[in-house]
Amino acid sequence: MKYSVMVEYALHSLVHLINIPSQTSVGIKELAEFQGLSETYLSKVFSKLTKAKIVDSVPGVKGGYKLAKAPDEISFLEVIRAVEGIKPIFQCNNIIAKAIYNTENEQDESCDSCPSKPSGCLINRTMLAAEKEMHDFLEKKSLAWLDVELDTILGLEERAKHRAFFNDNSK
Amino acid sequence: MKYSVMVEYALHSLVHLINIPSQTSVGIKELAEFQGLSETYLSKVFSKLTKAKIVDSVPGVKGGYKLAKAPDEISFLEVIRAVEGIKPIFQCNNIIAKAIYNTENEQDESCDSCPSKPSGCLINRTMLAAEKEMHDFLEKKSLAWLDVELDTILGLEERAKHRAFFNDNSK
Repeated sequence: MKYSVMVEYALHSLVHLINIPSQTSVGIKELAEFQGLSETYLSKVFSKLTKAKIVDSVPGVKGGYKLAKAPDEISFLEVIRAVEGIKPIFQCNNIIAKAIYNTENEQDESCDSCPSKPSGCLINRTMLAAEKEMHDFLEKKSLAWLDVELDTILGLEERAKHRAFFNDNSK
Repeated sequence: MKYSVMVEYALHSLVHLINIPSQTSVGIKELAEFQGLSETYLSKVFSKLTKAKIVDSVPGVKGGYKLAKAPDEISFLEVIRAVEGIKPIFQCNNIIAKAIYNTENEQDESCDSCPSKPSGCLINRTMLAAEKEMHDFLEKKSLAWLDVELDTILGLEERAKHRAFFNDNSK
């Protein structure tokens, strides 16, 4: 049970879109080259991020991508949902509906009713509550937070070098 | 990104092994019949639970399975790990190692070092911390807790009926 590698590509790539000079954007080619990633695959990731309104596509020869809103308005959770979708981790197939003791004949395989029903399947509700703990944590982590932390971890000099790579290549 | 249906089968089935009379066990055949599940698939789930020492297999004609320890010593997390394994949800491929700015040439694809290194990849460490929030929640939910909650939700009469099914079939 895993998140796809798209989550990793998305989060690592978005780092380089934080606080870039206005009127500039970052190209997929440069993001791919800088990180040693597949340009084709990274394009797919950015299509999803564009669709979720996390980034804007800038057309033109020197076009690329920029953040669609402020870095403190983009959470890890939002990025994950953009590339992974919003389906719960726990795969509830509503097996209660198939049980011989079930007289209500609720044959709804999707079991969407559980979370909202106090009488809904307790096991599904517990798993959803557990996942919510993870989501709440990821919702509090924003790109702005990541930016500040990376300044400390990598150092300002190292980060300036990274920024210079994209500045030089966008000219 | 999902847990397999095995998690659901395991948790729902273990309910029927809580506080059964001593010297008795519950058969896969009865568990499958009662819940409308595939006996073959449920056998695979119980092989994993046995290997993880959550249940003990009882041999013989009237054999089956019983809990290997007290219900308050078996957490949701332990059951999930038994059937899903312990690999993290976030698929870190250590893309930092491939980046052109990486001069240390750390080509460890597994990236096992991140969690323990303060200088390790912040994105991976954040994802692991988020998953830990979910795990901590699931570690606090035990089969004993589930048993008490189900008494309230389903009612004592309904639960007695469920127990009677397995008692009658184990004779």
